[in-house]
Amino acid sequence: MHQNKSLVILILLLGLLIHKYYCKEQTYIHNQGKPLRFHVAEFNFDHVSDVYAITLWILLGSLAKVGFHLSYRLTEKFPESCLLIMLGLIVGGLLYITHLAEQKAYVLNSDTFFLFLLPPIILEAGYFMPNRPFFDNLGTILLLAIVNTLFNTVCIGLTIYGFARTPIFGNTPFDMLSCFVFAALISAVDPVAVLATFTEIHVNDMLYIVVFGESLLNDAVSVVLYRMFDSFAKIGQENLILMDYVLGALSFFVVSLGGVLIGIIFGVVACFTTKFTEHTPVLEPLIILVYAYLAYLTSEMVSVSGILAITFCGMVMKQYVSFNISKKSDATTEYVLKMLSSIMETIIFMFMGLSTVSDHHSWNTGFVLITILSCLVFRVIGIAIFANLANCWRLLELTRIDMLI
Amino acid sequence: MHQNKSLVILILLLGLLIHKYYCKEQTYIHNQGKPLRFHVAEFNFDHVSDVYAITLWILLGSLAKVGFHLSYRLTEKFPESCLLIMLGLIVGGLLYITHLAEQKAYVLNSDTFFLFLLPPIILEAGYFMPNRPFFDNLGTILLLAIVNTLFNTVCIGLTIYGFARTPIFGNTPFDMLSCFVFAALISAVDPVAVLATFTEIHVNDMLYIVVFGESLLNDAVSVVLYRMFDSFAKIGQENLILMDYVLGALSFFVVSLGGVLIGIIFGVVACFTTKFTEHTPVLEPLIILVYAYLAYLTSEMVSVSGILAITFCGMVMKQYVSFNISKKSDATTEYVLKMLSSIMETIIFMFMGLSTVSDHHSWNTGFVLITILSCLVFRVIGIAIFANLANCWRLLELTRIDMLI
Repeated sequence: MHQNKSLVILILLLGLLIHKYYCKEQTYIHNQGKPLRFHVAEFNFDHVSDVYAITLWILLGSLAKVGFHLSYRLTEKFPESCLLIMLGLIVGGLLYITHLAEQKAYVLNSDTFFLFLLPPIILEAGYFMPNRPFFDNLGTILLLAIVNTLFNTVCIGLTIYGFARTPIFGNTPFDMLSCFVFAALISAVDPVAVLATFTEIHVNDMLYIVVFGESLLNDAVSVVLYRMFDSFAKIGQENLILMDYVLGALSFFVVSLGGVLIGIIFGVVACFTTKFTEHTPVLEPLIILVYAYLAYLTSEMVSVSGILAITFCGMVMKQYVSFNISKKSDATTEYVLKMLSSIMETIIFMFMGLSTVSDHHSWNTGFVLITILSCLVFRVIGIAIFANLANCWRLLELTRIDMLI
Repeated sequence: MHQNKSLVILILLLGLLIHKYYCKEQTYIHNQGKPLRFHVAEFNFDHVSDVYAITLWILLGSLAKVGFHLSYRLTEKFPESCLLIMLGLIVGGLLYITHLAEQKAYVLNSDTFFLFLLPPIILEAGYFMPNRPFFDNLGTILLLAIVNTLFNTVCIGLTIYGFARTPIFGNTPFDMLSCFVFAALISAVDPVAVLATFTEIHVNDMLYIVVFGESLLNDAVSVVLYRMFDSFAKIGQENLILMDYVLGALSFFVVSLGGVLIGIIFGVVACFTTKFTEHTPVLEPLIILVYAYLAYLTSEMVSVSGILAITFCGMVMKQYVSFNISKKSDATTEYVLKMLSSIMETIIFMFMGLSTVSDHHSWNTGFVLITILSCLVFRVIGIAIFANLANCWRLLELTRIDMLI
């Protein structure tokens, strides 16, 4: 088994070498100028470079996942996400040494993440979400998502602001509003990390629903809080009037309910469309995927919560579409969704390791430690308070809230 | 039924209107400068515009296909490809009137076509190609693909060159080599048109295999001829030596056999990889697609025939992969391939209509008429000669060789 794995890694390295060779080759040809004799074959890597790099990443991700699952001892000891991050670190190190890292295709920017990597994962989660338990626990989920996230943001923001007045962070200045902007960014539970962690450790259904539901809904809260504090910081602390706070509170409802509404509208339109596809069954999975993606893009376009939109779109479609489409289309849709979300998750974790190496950070130990500590402390306090308040379940573990920081 | 269709079209128009509205909205916001008050919701279309346009095109294509199939009378009278081209013409006209056509996402350039639209169609054809009849008829296919295409190119090139000396083309000058470059471009049978036409009119299996096989293999011939004449034209007519012709003939073997070799290598590697995927069945369809696409990209990169590579990759994989992967993966792969090739074909035909409206042509009636006529005449002559030579089937209709010009 181990032999196979090393073989896989060997092939990957070979691929990278060939890749590098072609890069050089192509520069060499460009220097030649006008061809004097007819070439039997020629290299043009520029033509396909971006697509080629992306395809290679997808292949690397799938092969890595296949390789990890071949060795039982490896997957028993470490969770898959850690292994993928480690692989990303190794590849990042290799690229850094070989100076290929400057090429643009090798970094994960936020646009790629939000436009391509995130939607399939959330759609899959929404599509396979058990609807009954979700609505049964809606009260608890809302309480946790809204009140607890607000509580966390305020507490973490205040803590960082408090420590910023002591010399522990060195001489970096922080003002109050940037503390709150940062707190809003990190106090939300990340749905990707929740899904990855909870699927791996197999928690009970109810706990999964509650925490995952919370992580979905507090996307809206954190989007609003972030935009609110960011906008406040731009307007300036001294120019704020009461009206701004009212508008901020109002915009929370717009963002969350708008996202839900857009999701439901696209879901219903998708159901309506699939009523007429009996003659073209082969297009049905595509139509479902395209509508869900449009729901997400539309929400992002009007700045309401795209995560909520695509979740609710998936939930509505799952409920009604499967009666309209052929059995084969249904099976294909589910399989494709699982496939896409699986590979996107793999790529996200791999790139997380990769960008740790290739990005330029200014490291501030005190700041990072205080942040992680205050996240953990206030998360525990918040959960303890609100879990007792909701008073309806036995146990709630900490999620990796600091996964994406 | 007709009511439904008009409803679908209404929705599409509405979509376009909303699209246009957002474009305006976004410009309006950009002019505002720094925000003075907190916005409850904001539009940022720039952020998602490209992806949004592509997704809308896919949706438009699927809905159009669904709509056409709803009305039996429509699909009885016209072939689907004609309807799609007409829709493209209408949308193109609308975009032209509303002056949205200047935006870059609305034109089909050759990169998009060769990198994204063509591979799925060819892969699907290769994957579902009946292997036995293909190899049974290999001799005929090779004869048609190589000798007939050469014959066509030379004859058409000479005809155009001959007419270029008469005043029929007006005062546009042509030299001999550009005539041959153009002849090489148009004398190949286009596989997409062959597939679309033959699937619609349901010819017998053997005829399908022969013509489709020819259209695949003469891709290599036309690539080589085009590159050879193009390169010759650059070197200059007076500088050509015998060595160039020998290298040209040699490069035909490199391009075609190289493509086949790359396809087979990637196919075998894919088979080998799927041996180890029993624990991660959900990734299997992805791995198959990625390997096939890599075969295509690699061939394009080293300038050998990507069409041949992806065809042979599909043929090899179909033969051996299905034993390695789970039943569900196999079904999903086939369904996804059909889905992708179907939507890509739709988009190609739609864009063909669209770019007729939006591009700027210099129209030369004499030239176009002579070209189409000489294509038809020499195609018939060539087929008559070589079909009698091969002497093994009953009938061979004309394909739309001028579909893509």
